[in-house]
This record gives sequence, C-alpha cells and structure tokens, in this order.
Amino acid sequence: MKLVTVGTVAFDNIETPFGRADKVVGGAATYISLAASYFVRDQGIVSVIGDDFPQGMMHRMRERGINLDGLELMPGKESFFWSGKYHYDMNSRDTLETRLNVLQDLDPDLNPAYRRAEYLMLGNLDPAVQAKVLDQVESPSLVVMDTMNFWMDNALDKLRDVISRVDILAINDSEARQLSDEHSLVRAAHAIMEMGPQYLVVKKGEHGALLFNKKRVFFAPAMPLDEVVDPTGAGDTFAGGFIGYLARSGDHSFNNLKRAIIVGSAMASFCCEKFGVERLLELKQEEIDLRIQQFVDLVDFDIKLVRE
Amino acid sequence: MKLVTVGTVAFDNIETPFGRADKVVGGAATYISLAASYFVRDQGIVSVIGDDFPQGMMHRMRERGINLDGLELMPGKESFFWSGKYHYDMNSRDTLETRLNVLQDLDPDLNPAYRRAEYLMLGNLDPAVQAKVLDQVESPSLVVMDTMNFWMDNALDKLRDVISRVDILAINDSEARQLSDEHSLVRAAHAIMEMGPQYLVVKKGEHGALLFNKKRVFFAPAMPLDEVVDPTGAGDTFAGGFIGYLARSGDHSFNNLKRAIIVGSAMASFCCEKFGVERLLELKQEEIDLRIQQFVDLVDFDIKLVRE
Repeated sequence: MKLVTVGTVAFDNIETPFGRADKVVGGAATYISLAASYFVRDQGIVSVIGDDFPQGMMHRMRERGINLDGLELMPGKESFFWSGKYHYDMNSRDTLETRLNVLQDLDPDLNPAYRRAEYLMLGNLDPAVQAKVLDQVESPSLVVMDTMNFWMDNALDKLRDVISRVDILAINDSEARQLSDEHSLVRAAHAIMEMGPQYLVVKKGEHGALLFNKKRVFFAPAMPLDEVVDPTGAGDTFAGGFIGYLARSGDHSFNNLKRAIIVGSAMASFCCEKFGVERLLELKQEEIDLRIQQFVDLVDFDIKLVRE
Repeated sequence: MKLVTVGTVAFDNIETPFGRADKVVGGAATYISLAASYFVRDQGIVSVIGDDFPQGMMHRMRERGINLDGLELMPGKESFFWSGKYHYDMNSRDTLETRLNVLQDLDPDLNPAYRRAEYLMLGNLDPAVQAKVLDQVESPSLVVMDTMNFWMDNALDKLRDVISRVDILAINDSEARQLSDEHSLVRAAHAIMEMGPQYLVVKKGEHGALLFNKKRVFFAPAMPLDEVVDPTGAGDTFAGGFIGYLARSGDHSFNNLKRAIIVGSAMASFCCEKFGVERLLELKQEEIDLRIQQFVDLVDFDIKLVRE
C-alpha cells in the first residue's frame, strides 16, 4: 500500500462567530485521507468508529479510493466526539467537550498490505497508538507525524520517543515553542530537529507554514480567502495534501518538500470554505490546479536592487 | 525634495519578556526616515521635539542625509514619550504611558523645498496634522499613509477624509478589520479601497504583509529571526523602506510595489534585531542585499503538478 494514515475518525460540533454545525463527520484520519486522495489512490486508514458512524460517508471515502480495512467498527459503542468554539480571529479555539468513546479501545493490528505501507502518516493521537502503528509498518520510505500540546502535557516521554523515530514532524507554532521551550521559531525548529526529525513543518493557520531542515527554511502563506467558514481540519488537510503529494511524486528533496507544502496549503484553503469535510469530497482537479497557480501568483516577485 | 515624512520623533521605554530599554530615541518619523535613508538622500521630516532631545541623534540623522529643517524645537518643553510592554508572542503589546508633551502643539508650516516633495509619507499621527501637511505639499506623485486604531476610535471623520486623499494606506490587520468592519482581510481590503486608496498594505508583524489593489494580491513573509529583541518601530521601518524604494525607483506599478514590500520587510527585520533605531544607523548595503536575497530564497519554489 502506498500510504497508511492512523488518526481519529470522529463527529464534531463546531461553532464559529459566523455559524455553527452539529455532528459533522471529522477527525484527523478523515481529513488527511480525503486530502491525500487527490494524489494517491492506494491508501488506507487505521482508526475506529462506533455503529453511529454513517455508512454514507464510508461509501464516499471508498469512492475516493480510500481502503477502510483498517477502520475497526465497535458495535454498541459511539464514535469519538469533539466539540469546539472558534474565537473571532479564527486562529484560536476552545475545546468545549471531548468524548473519547471508542477511541480509548483503539489497539491497531495492521493487515499485511498495511504493514508494507511506503508512506506513513501518524495523525494526532495518543503517541502510544502512533508507536504501535510505527512498530508494525515494516520499512516505510517516509514517516510524517502530527501531535498536539495535550500529549506534551500528558505523555511527553512517549511522545519524544515517537518523535525520535519520524522523518518529518508537522505541528503548529505554539506547539513548536512548547516542545522546544524556545520562543524563536528558528531556534525551536533546530532544537526539535535535534530530537530526531530531519524536517520540521510549522503550521501557522491563517499565517501560513514554515518548512525547516538543518540548513534551509521555506515559507508558504495561507491563501487569503473571502470567507473562512470553518477552519476545523485545515491542519490535517494540509498534512494530507503534503504527504499525498510526496507519495505521488516519490521525491523527498527539500525542493520537492517545498512543493508539497504549497499543495498542502492549497488543499487546506479549500477545507476552510465549508463546514466539515464537505469541500474535500467534491473538488475537481482544475480547481486544485487553479488554486496552486494562485499561490504562485501570491508570492511571486522579481527583485531589482536599487541603491541610494 | 524627493521625500517628506511627517510623524512623531520620540523617546520610548520598551519592555519585552526578554529585556528592557529606557528612554531610547524612537518615533514614527525617526524610523521611517532612517529606513528610507538607505534609498533616498534628498529627504526631510516634519515633526517636533523638546530640548531634551539628544543632539547626537540629530547629528547622526543628518549624516544619513536627513534634512531636519522641518523638525521644530520647542525650548523648555519635553519630547513626546511612549512606554510599552510586549506580550510573550511579541506581536501584541500594551501601551503603559503616553505623554504628548510637544506633540500637542505641532502645527506644521512647510518651507518651499518641503512643499515641492515628490513623495509624501504620512506617519501615524493625529489625522488633522496629516491633513495639514497634505494640504501644503503641492503635487506629490505618491502619498502613503499609516494610522492606528486610536484615530479610528477618536477622530474617524477626519481620518476618513485623509484616507480618501492618499494613494496607499498601510495599516495592520486588526486596524484593517476595524476600519472596514469586515473580518476577512480580503473583504476588508476591498472595502478600504472603496474609501479612496488605490492600494492597501496590511502589516501583520511577524506574520508578514499583504499588498492589495482592486485586482491583485501579493504576500510577503516576515523573515524568521533567531531572536527578536525589540519589534518597536518595525512597522514604521517597513513603511520607510517601502516608500524609500519607490521614491528611488520612481515606478508605481504593482510589480514594483511588490519589490518595495520585500525591501520594507527586509528593513523591518533589521529593526527587530536591536532596541530602538540602533540597527538602522549602522547597516551596510551588503547586509541589505543579502537579507533581500534571503527573502527570495525563503519563498522561492517551482511547482510541478502531479495528479492522482
């Protein structure tokens, strides 16, 4: 299998200053795999759902080429549920409620095809579960990992262990500062790369994303949108576009990682245009190409130095 | 005269989570003119100081080619004073104290050379004073204006009047949202351009800057720095590099405005490296060229579209 993603599959209640949506399908693995599906057909997800999860969404995911053999159904139980409320600036939010439900019993046992995954995406989840998946995938050519401050507060040793084993860590700016105990993102990046990953991606929401290796840095903006309806899942969608593009192209050079960042940013911009995963179910290749061209135009300049 | 800037010349007390500096020379006109001095020799400032202002700084400004005929000295009075404290994220700050002192008596009467200014920079100041300067400059080829939320709260009618008469407004993101009453920066930009300016520059501090006209948008990042010592004056320094570059090149096309944004961003990045204007007094042309090249490298990518 080309790509395997472990992460949550969930229901979300979302409230923004401009609207709300209840019990929409969300979860890291859902957003990641849907975004990646525009670049990779041969992918599967590792997650767990209750019998409240809608068959219709599973059908639509399969239609997009996502293998659901790794999606365990636990009868008589409820799917993971998250409820959150965005502040006016939409770059910060409060979690109102988290019900783990089936998630507390997730104990992945990957089938042989999944174990031969070439690309592995460790979506935000208990690092103990991320480690179990990492242990089972035999020889991935690239491992990308997301996490969040909750695991830094509550499972730092296990988290550091997983971080030491991945190629690319993709987290947000406040998490990078917390993990490294450095205020400067430049210093934070270098401290985190000392922990193991060859690359760090710093996601800054509406303020774009940074890519670091030990020698270079690249910045991609977020697309300025007329309207941000719902930023939920934008970071996961970014990760899905990012690893999907890398898996499709098979090129892990810094220059190709830059392209993957742009692709991830383009996919994330679509995610924000509607509530939940809706936009990721309906994209046309022409829309993606056009959005990527808009990113080219957004940052393109040629400099002619003039001096006093 | 090529460029005239009206704005404050001041003393600042600055406190950051990592250090503090007392009674350093600051003020919008100081930062703007020093940044512009790397691109334009024939420039003057319109402002006011008390007799507490250090002769040494005036000497150093003159050495950088800044004409001080428009800098009025009010004997027996004190210079404008501002005191502020930065939060941990350094992108927001609290004003602890403002003493207007001489500033409340500023009533500009420009000499003939100043009245023939080709480029006019209206630094953040009472819009009534900005209007008086604008009235006296006979036929500027380009007028750039900065302002802040204080004038939106306290002098909106006068402010709107000045805004309607300038070519380019350069304000920060929260000010753009307040002025337009739009949350989306894209919508805010278009609402503000309806008020008169042909271009809007949205300064986002460590998150970069956006340039809008009615048809196009351009984004420039801020340079990721190892250490931000003091962001005070970075927005003014940006404006000084921006208008200085435009005045030097004489090209007001969108493509050249993009270059001016990059130059302004480069100058602003230097400003943050030390307290006050210190860094702007000592820059070498090679450092500026190198920093601009770093901006080129920071955002440069070529995209190869791959598809599923």
